[in-house]
Amino acid sequence: MRLLITIVFCFIMGQISAQTDAENLKSIYSNSLTNGMSYQWLDHLSNQIGGRLSGSLNAEKAVQYTKEELEKLGLDKVWLQPVMVPRWVRGAPEFAYFETSPGVTTNVNICALGGSVATPLGGIKAKVIEVKSYKDLEALGEAEIKGKIVFINRPMQADLINTFEAYGGCAVERYAGAAEAAKYGAVGTIVRSLNLRLDDFPHTGSMSYGDLPVNQRIPSAAISTNDAELLSGMLALNKEVKFFFKQNCQQLKDVQSYNVIGEITGSEFPNEIIIVGGHLDSWDLGDGSHDDGAGVVQSMDVLRLLKESGIKPKRTIRVVLFMNEENGLRGGRKYAEIAQEKKENHVFALESDSGGFTPRGFSFDCSDVMFAKIESWKPLFKPYLIHYFEKGGSGADIGPLKNDNIVLTGLRPDSQRYFDHHHASNDTFEHVNKRELELGAASMTALIYLIDKYGTQTISNTEELRD
Amino acid sequence: MRLLITIVFCFIMGQISAQTDAENLKSIYSNSLTNGMSYQWLDHLSNQIGGRLSGSLNAEKAVQYTKEELEKLGLDKVWLQPVMVPRWVRGAPEFAYFETSPGVTTNVNICALGGSVATPLGGIKAKVIEVKSYKDLEALGEAEIKGKIVFINRPMQADLINTFEAYGGCAVERYAGAAEAAKYGAVGTIVRSLNLRLDDFPHTGSMSYGDLPVNQRIPSAAISTNDAELLSGMLALNKEVKFFFKQNCQQLKDVQSYNVIGEITGSEFPNEIIIVGGHLDSWDLGDGSHDDGAGVVQSMDVLRLLKESGIKPKRTIRVVLFMNEENGLRGGRKYAEIAQEKKENHVFALESDSGGFTPRGFSFDCSDVMFAKIESWKPLFKPYLIHYFEKGGSGADIGPLKNDNIVLTGLRPDSQRYFDHHHASNDTFEHVNKRELELGAASMTALIYLIDKYGTQTISNTEELRD
Repeated sequence: MRLLITIVFCFIMGQISAQTDAENLKSIYSNSLTNGMSYQWLDHLSNQIGGRLSGSLNAEKAVQYTKEELEKLGLDKVWLQPVMVPRWVRGAPEFAYFETSPGVTTNVNICALGGSVATPLGGIKAKVIEVKSYKDLEALGEAEIKGKIVFINRPMQADLINTFEAYGGCAVERYAGAAEAAKYGAVGTIVRSLNLRLDDFPHTGSMSYGDLPVNQRIPSAAISTNDAELLSGMLALNKEVKFFFKQNCQQLKDVQSYNVIGEITGSEFPNEIIIVGGHLDSWDLGDGSHDDGAGVVQSMDVLRLLKESGIKPKRTIRVVLFMNEENGLRGGRKYAEIAQEKKENHVFALESDSGGFTPRGFSFDCSDVMFAKIESWKPLFKPYLIHYFEKGGSGADIGPLKNDNIVLTGLRPDSQRYFDHHHASNDTFEHVNKRELELGAASMTALIYLIDKYGTQTISNTEELRD
Repeated sequence: MRLLITIVFCFIMGQISAQTDAENLKSIYSNSLTNGMSYQWLDHLSNQIGGRLSGSLNAEKAVQYTKEELEKLGLDKVWLQPVMVPRWVRGAPEFAYFETSPGVTTNVNICALGGSVATPLGGIKAKVIEVKSYKDLEALGEAEIKGKIVFINRPMQADLINTFEAYGGCAVERYAGAAEAAKYGAVGTIVRSLNLRLDDFPHTGSMSYGDLPVNQRIPSAAISTNDAELLSGMLALNKEVKFFFKQNCQQLKDVQSYNVIGEITGSEFPNEIIIVGGHLDSWDLGDGSHDDGAGVVQSMDVLRLLKESGIKPKRTIRVVLFMNEENGLRGGRKYAEIAQEKKENHVFALESDSGGFTPRGFSFDCSDVMFAKIESWKPLFKPYLIHYFEKGGSGADIGPLKNDNIVLTGLRPDSQRYFDHHHASNDTFEHVNKRELELGAASMTALIYLIDKYGTQTISNTEELRD
């Protein structure tokens, strides 16, 4: 009889709890869509500050602005965490053309890749060798490459549904192409922009020379997809085409910057820390609205939405706005380093760094047992069309926190439009839809609410479910 | 033993069939994303033809263009189905302002609602009475309303996740507001645009005077959301504000137009007809790219994608491009009328008329048994992030086909951005994303493929599952 009463009691409490969860999620979504702050914050970050490359004045303005806004929310703590960041500057705009015969030139749209060296002052002009992958370089060898500009023309694979997979398949060309081409005596590299659309925007992004000696480093630029097609078509007709480009970028000395952090201290388990974040820095060409202004303002609004919805977290909820994700990951590394020094117990981290588009769900880096627990919440998300719950990667900034205890999670918005804007001058505020952004903030808040309420302890955190 | 063999055989065949289905879906999606025609067709429809209001020259150009393009696909039959359509013309652009004191005016953005009468040649100027709903008019009565312009300022409900629900909650104000206001002696109505965003675009759409005598009809216009807010704010300060507007629209005589139809005749059950369609007409302010150029080109591409993927339909697959959805539904009604006359057996109809955004799934108007059958295909759609399978409405054009045998279905794309553009001058080609459009075409093709393969017969089509 006692058992029966207990069972009935647990059943009823379970029902009440589920109802409360549904009501709290409704309040969170409703609040975000009618009264959200994310869009207004993004407007300031994008239109009053603009592109926020690490080490720039704008990046520091963004630090100050977001700190002040977090302070207005009445959190328990707001602080800046110092971190030294690299400072790469683009200098005057790049200029490029190809020449089909002496004096007959066609201008093309390029931009220096982040981390690249400049061309000599007078620019570089050389013949072009086109490849589909940097792996083709070995087969061609020095005989074919020496003295030429290597043009890596690898289109993103259009038939992958998740555009991040298509990006992943090509990003290495941008990152490592110049270092590889330099080994065979190339004088520069031009990489097709990582953009699924045919248009005129060159897309920057980080590249690295690895351990290549400084005097062997060659300048590397991205070319717009339209111009990549044009150049490729021209090379098919005429191998003698010459390409000219001039870029004026410089790597300066590291400078002091900050991660911006705010927290609501947990009422029951203050030492269990849940973080939510995005990165405050962006590339310099656009205003970084999708990458990652969106993630920044959504993360800020998670704490506000919890408070507005009358939710008092049991665990500590911390928003972390990371500096320097784009060209160094110094902020993410510093945050993890300090966390380890302080022996902080991070149990959950959620990153939004895939654009401010309609959220579809989340990707979880965790044990199967924990994943099963999270999956049991799917019905709560159904009214909001949040359906994607899969195991997988999370986000670059929270990656350094990885250990056996923490659950790492990435927001997964609809990915179709992301690479139209990514790292290009059209990553701007007018391409962010207010409702899509707000739905993302609400979805993140809803997940954080459930994680805080039910914790990350499972029957066994170490033993994986066998299936 | 025989039973066992049968069971094993069925199981194996089931597995093979599922594999083939998965492969066919992959081929369909891949073809649409790498080799689709929908975007190219939409480019022509939007940028070479433009807005296609029923009865206009552009509408006739669209009829000719889509017929010619369907003829190029090598279908078994392509034809035009004549239908008489209403012809309403906007005339010269509208003009409006409000006047806070004599001579002190502020211009505002309005557009005549489709079907409205014009103002007198010199326009109308009158005091304004603001209401949130046309239902408020009865309480105010003639004493408050007579001689005034009624301003119906009902915002769409922002916290509904499905924006079509929010639209449904307000569309009656636009459709019936003028007829209702006229009963109390109003001289005109100004309706807040059905737009969830605050911006400067007025959004047109159909309205009706019902059986109101012609001499009692008053002009009705939509005002942009920004200007609705401005006017409302001004009225809160000063009830004496006067509103002026002039519009020049006319209802002309009905003219001849066409539904455009093409089909692949079924190889096994040619008399079972499956249709897929959108509407060829659009409002006149933009180029009708989302509403419903997208649905038109996606539907056309369904037949092409089936052919390209080597699928030979057992049933007849027919694309129907309906004329006059926006202000009369004459094409949809005519199609159903002719189908009934010819005793055609329509078993399935799919409409795309919710914009060319990332597809999320489908809404089905069918029996529970049939719905269960369709739901069993969900795993096939999972790789394409198509997750929304719900019972519900379908589309306006296919509605007149409704009977006990037919399954009516609507494509359900992400709805967040739809009403930013709906019926406004910014419903234009550049706001359609190629991949999103193509994913919609592929999803429609995949569903049609499965419906054709497995049919719409269920254990019992008449007896519903009790649950």
